[in-house]
Amino acid sequence: MKKYKKNDLESYTLGTTLTLELLNKKLEYVKRVYIHSKQEENDAYNKIIKICNDNKIEVIYSDKIINTLSDKENCYIIGVFQKYEMNLSNSNHIVLVNPSNMGNLGTIIRSAVGFNIHDLVIIRPGVDSFDPKVIRSSMGAIFNINIKYFDSFDDYFKLFNDRNFYPFMLKAKDSLQEIKKEDKKYSLIFGNEGAGLPDEFLKVGTPVIIRHTKDIDSLNLDNAVAIALYEFSKK
Amino acid sequence: MKKYKKNDLESYTLGTTLTLELLNKKLEYVKRVYIHSKQEENDAYNKIIKICNDNKIEVIYSDKIINTLSDKENCYIIGVFQKYEMNLSNSNHIVLVNPSNMGNLGTIIRSAVGFNIHDLVIIRPGVDSFDPKVIRSSMGAIFNINIKYFDSFDDYFKLFNDRNFYPFMLKAKDSLQEIKKEDKKYSLIFGNEGAGLPDEFLKVGTPVIIRHTKDIDSLNLDNAVAIALYEFSKK
Repeated sequence: MKKYKKNDLESYTLGTTLTLELLNKKLEYVKRVYIHSKQEENDAYNKIIKICNDNKIEVIYSDKIINTLSDKENCYIIGVFQKYEMNLSNSNHIVLVNPSNMGNLGTIIRSAVGFNIHDLVIIRPGVDSFDPKVIRSSMGAIFNINIKYFDSFDDYFKLFNDRNFYPFMLKAKDSLQEIKKEDKKYSLIFGNEGAGLPDEFLKVGTPVIIRHTKDIDSLNLDNAVAIALYEFSKK
Repeated sequence: MKKYKKNDLESYTLGTTLTLELLNKKLEYVKRVYIHSKQEENDAYNKIIKICNDNKIEVIYSDKIINTLSDKENCYIIGVFQKYEMNLSNSNHIVLVNPSNMGNLGTIIRSAVGFNIHDLVIIRPGVDSFDPKVIRSSMGAIFNINIKYFDSFDDYFKLFNDRNFYPFMLKAKDSLQEIKKEDKKYSLIFGNEGAGLPDEFLKVGTPVIIRHTKDIDSLNLDNAVAIALYEFSKK
């Protein structure tokens, strides 16, 4: 077992809470669980052992493998799972065009699930949502959302076009505070952390800006997404 | 010159953009500027050199010092400044009780400035806002905000009590979507990333919850702050 690489068929959860979330949400994909000798026999540990026993999931005690896979000192349980395909539902979506930061992606997934969005589109190139860093940053919410990659926005648009599109961009004229939200399915679209969305998105749906002072260039991507999710979750 | 430690009297900005922001906003505290031999003579560089020359700020060409201070390979300019005292204005405040994550603190500062809040209170223990990691994560917004540390919330409350207090907590009854915002000065109060605010804050002002699904335990701290800032910035 080596450190995760993008083309691996398996990935893993670092830590007790994440591993328990994996077992609860994606049991069918769990291959084995590694446990460090320093792990206490606490409540979470007992739950994990019981689920593994009940479902014949292999439990391996190995300090060496845990030390290889984890950068943090206090990670004592790792769950290995087979990466799985996900399909989007025809509900509300978040669309990230070329996201490049793993921590941001995880946080966005967490907030999305918090505001009842369970479908995330990533337009390539974009970071790998199965990277253990993304999983950790999502606090396990990743096991509660469908993520689908597309090579271009057009490819996505061909499949899902009967909905309202809201690209978030600094060049937009309508501000989030003022737009009228129709009672129709929607996709909220956000660009890359540094570059934002390209100008061609000014022609897509209703471009929106979250107005802020001139003292900053832009909001942090995951903060912008959180604000948009909050506003659109209002009835 | 060594890597930053909390008790140092000086701190520094890593990178060209941040250093230019430092020179533009806090010129009087800048002690010297380090430049790496790989730095190109571009527009930003020329601006920095001009400001330094005009204000007799020492410019030192040293690859060794830049390599010592920066973890990133593409950091070619570092600005060293004397840490300064700040005082709060009697405007709207954000209060962070025991914040522990430097990246979060920087992002919160950036969003605060973006929503026109220029006063930040930190209740100890809390991360050091002058740490270069916080400065970098704030994208320079830190030079546009007043930050003041207090040993306890009571110490802060003694000085600023003629205002509305909104502690954000999962145990609150009123949700952000529904509370009536009075036209009065306010302080938005947030707890530690892991623990949240202690229960005693249920007796402070109007406790508020940002409602989310049960599928997540809580929102990420900087996302919660961003949402609150957005909602309170509405007229």
